[in-house]
Amino acid sequence: MRNLTLLTDFYELTMMQAYHHSEITTGQKRTAVFDMFYRENPCGNGYAVVAGLAQVVDYIRELAFHDDDIAYLRSTGVFGEEFLEYLKAFKFSGSINAVPEGTVVFPGEPLVQVIAPLPQAQLIESAVLNIINHQSLIATKAARVCEAARGDRVLEFGLRRAQGPDAGLYGARAAMIGGCYGTSNVLAGQLFDIPVQGTHAHSWIMSFESEIEAFRNYANLYPKPCFLLVDTYDTLKSGIPNAIKVFREMQEKGIALENFGIRLDSGDLAYLSKRARKMLDEAGFPTAVISASNDLDEHIIAELKAQGAQISLWGVGTRLITSKEYPAFGGVYKLASLSTSGGEWKSKIKLSEDPLKVTNPGIKKVFRLYDAASGKMKADLIALAHEEFHPSHDLTIFDPIATWKQMRLKANQYTIRELLQPVFIDGECVHTPLTVPEICAYAARERATLWDEHKRLVRPQTMPIDLSQQLYDLKKQMIEQLRED
Amino acid sequence: MRNLTLLTDFYELTMMQAYHHSEITTGQKRTAVFDMFYRENPCGNGYAVVAGLAQVVDYIRELAFHDDDIAYLRSTGVFGEEFLEYLKAFKFSGSINAVPEGTVVFPGEPLVQVIAPLPQAQLIESAVLNIINHQSLIATKAARVCEAARGDRVLEFGLRRAQGPDAGLYGARAAMIGGCYGTSNVLAGQLFDIPVQGTHAHSWIMSFESEIEAFRNYANLYPKPCFLLVDTYDTLKSGIPNAIKVFREMQEKGIALENFGIRLDSGDLAYLSKRARKMLDEAGFPTAVISASNDLDEHIIAELKAQGAQISLWGVGTRLITSKEYPAFGGVYKLASLSTSGGEWKSKIKLSEDPLKVTNPGIKKVFRLYDAASGKMKADLIALAHEEFHPSHDLTIFDPIATWKQMRLKANQYTIRELLQPVFIDGECVHTPLTVPEICAYAARERATLWDEHKRLVRPQTMPIDLSQQLYDLKKQMIEQLRED
Repeated sequence: MRNLTLLTDFYELTMMQAYHHSEITTGQKRTAVFDMFYRENPCGNGYAVVAGLAQVVDYIRELAFHDDDIAYLRSTGVFGEEFLEYLKAFKFSGSINAVPEGTVVFPGEPLVQVIAPLPQAQLIESAVLNIINHQSLIATKAARVCEAARGDRVLEFGLRRAQGPDAGLYGARAAMIGGCYGTSNVLAGQLFDIPVQGTHAHSWIMSFESEIEAFRNYANLYPKPCFLLVDTYDTLKSGIPNAIKVFREMQEKGIALENFGIRLDSGDLAYLSKRARKMLDEAGFPTAVISASNDLDEHIIAELKAQGAQISLWGVGTRLITSKEYPAFGGVYKLASLSTSGGEWKSKIKLSEDPLKVTNPGIKKVFRLYDAASGKMKADLIALAHEEFHPSHDLTIFDPIATWKQMRLKANQYTIRELLQPVFIDGECVHTPLTVPEICAYAARERATLWDEHKRLVRPQTMPIDLSQQLYDLKKQMIEQLRED
Repeated sequence: MRNLTLLTDFYELTMMQAYHHSEITTGQKRTAVFDMFYRENPCGNGYAVVAGLAQVVDYIRELAFHDDDIAYLRSTGVFGEEFLEYLKAFKFSGSINAVPEGTVVFPGEPLVQVIAPLPQAQLIESAVLNIINHQSLIATKAARVCEAARGDRVLEFGLRRAQGPDAGLYGARAAMIGGCYGTSNVLAGQLFDIPVQGTHAHSWIMSFESEIEAFRNYANLYPKPCFLLVDTYDTLKSGIPNAIKVFREMQEKGIALENFGIRLDSGDLAYLSKRARKMLDEAGFPTAVISASNDLDEHIIAELKAQGAQISLWGVGTRLITSKEYPAFGGVYKLASLSTSGGEWKSKIKLSEDPLKVTNPGIKKVFRLYDAASGKMKADLIALAHEEFHPSHDLTIFDPIATWKQMRLKANQYTIRELLQPVFIDGECVHTPLTVPEICAYAARERATLWDEHKRLVRPQTMPIDLSQQLYDLKKQMIEQLRED
């Protein structure tokens, strides 16, 4: 584990010193509540898949300013010795609640809630955002790609185009949480116990005197799985006929052909896959799998499927690992409440011209409401921390912007679940680590709680994310108060 | 330094095992030449800025399969014990030539040339591409943003939206190479000796009872540089008047105001900055700097400047650190030549329907041609490794696709420079490491060799990147040969 303590914006440290300084001079220690949330689903999706919490936990546990960090900070000339002494002894002593990785989430609701001494809560802003923003982006993009693939296996192939080593590594992890079946990234396979896959490159074919010789050599060494890349010279005239020849030779040698097929990596994938299917079927290989790669994303996959492409295994690279059409998740970290030592909590709000950008004040909880009969999700309700809701009572919720949009949930016809789970309590980690395969299984169950209408790739149905009456009233009152000032 | 040995695509390892196996069975060791190059400048730019070589050097030097790596590879069931033994003793023994970091580069020319035993050259493909693709992307994007800022300082502020920790860290490094003045990323400051900057967040303002109190406290602690964020409540009615009040108070206390000003982070930046300029000037602070942030990129900066925005310091985040409109550099790694032990080199080519995608065969050099009088770049010439060119002779070069487009360079009126420099020779690192500030200074000189026409943000003039007659003939002959087969 690398120490990422200095992976922070400089202003977090200058603010931290200022807060620390004020604690010393006033004798007042303040505790802050910050919410990490986002405002818009990536790629126009109907939801997002949150990911990255395990790396946030690692980051927080490893938080420590080492001698070289202190020396570096001293060299900037901005930090006093008293503050540097404080940093030397720094340990995170706050609490963190978070939505479990793989959960389906929506704009405006806290994904991570940090309740900590103000200087500490400030320090961790940049890294928490960096990690959750990245992995949630890729998990959400992967969920879209897998949705388009409609049950076909999707492999993450993007390492070479990822934005640096971590983007490849944690991007592969997030892609799995979003629904991918495996990755080409060996380090991700090693660290996260996820299936790694791959065949050969064009350079493999080019390193032999002929394509057939290249195929033969590959099939000899790797009879299962055996996928032959058929587009180096001419897909229909050379690649597929040579692949068929090699599959026949394998059969003749008595090798049981399982998990075998071809990979298309250029040309018109709809046309070529249909021709390939016909050629493979006619040659007696109806179980040969046709896989494809080449700048794929959810839109191209959906279109290819609509055109009857005979592809059932998709290798998705650049456009998944960078979330090319929407490469930043946009999560923010906003102050929601503040208290002085032993004092009362004081809710905080940030105004904006744009009503969607006005923050939700106070210490909050997020409740997810399900239809009891189908188990499908109905809405989320963001409420104040002291509020409780019981499915034995009728519940009416309403849209916080268009307040006339109401939803009535009848007693005993709905169920409730609270999304934020404790991760740190007073500096102690209480998080139960899950393996990536466990997170993936949970994430798949999560996506299954959505109706297809919410999973549509383009213009999906919007999930109601409402505020409780009490939170709504608090927010309204605070806005009015600030407008008067 | 982390060990990134397993940061590779699985197929590199399966091909590697196959190549190794063939070395054992045939007794023939082959040496390969791979070129890393790219096909299209990011964002429609007229050039790219190559970056990342220092991290490639680190990666290659640290290449080693440790016991846990071997155990993991064994667990996949795909690798034999003989191959695993070979990996245990693995050390890179090849040669690498590369274009120095910060160099202005163009599509089609080798940026990294790997000449190594085939299994070794194959292994490093994924990581070399990952690192160079990422940093070159961000360096190029930064060059565009700085071009739009026309000499104003640009700060990289994107850590929280970067695609993981490395994307923030190495993205900040690359942004500096592209021309940024500093970063908010403290870890980048520590590791790469680059200036870190930052002020305070909205949460700072919100943590006080009033805006003026927040400003006062900040200015007390950080009188220089002192930038006050003025948009938390109301920029014109509250933020700027309060900032002016605090600047006055500082003056009254006898604090010399230097490197001070305001930061705008929302609203219409053209309008607000003009109003702010007027207010600051009238208050007697004509030297107060107006800085701005909020989803900026080169297009918005250029438009704001065209509208007379009074901003001279730009904080650029998401759209720089992710290269939002074009988030993948698209570099590829292609086999160019192959030889058997002691045997002759055999050039390799990869065909494609698209003429721009046909690779350049053979072992190559890249020559840069400059106008002797102005020192400005005229063209690049990709040639075979044995070719030499002397400015004492006339030289006619031509476009390899539209061959009628010719350029004649008169003897003694041009100068020549070879771009590829040795980095590793037979496994030994011969690279002279430069500090990031040194690379930045070189990169600035590089960009100065381009005419403005090549630096235009939209539809820039295309730089001629030509092939020598010999390389052109070889390529043509190989294409014809393959077409006949």
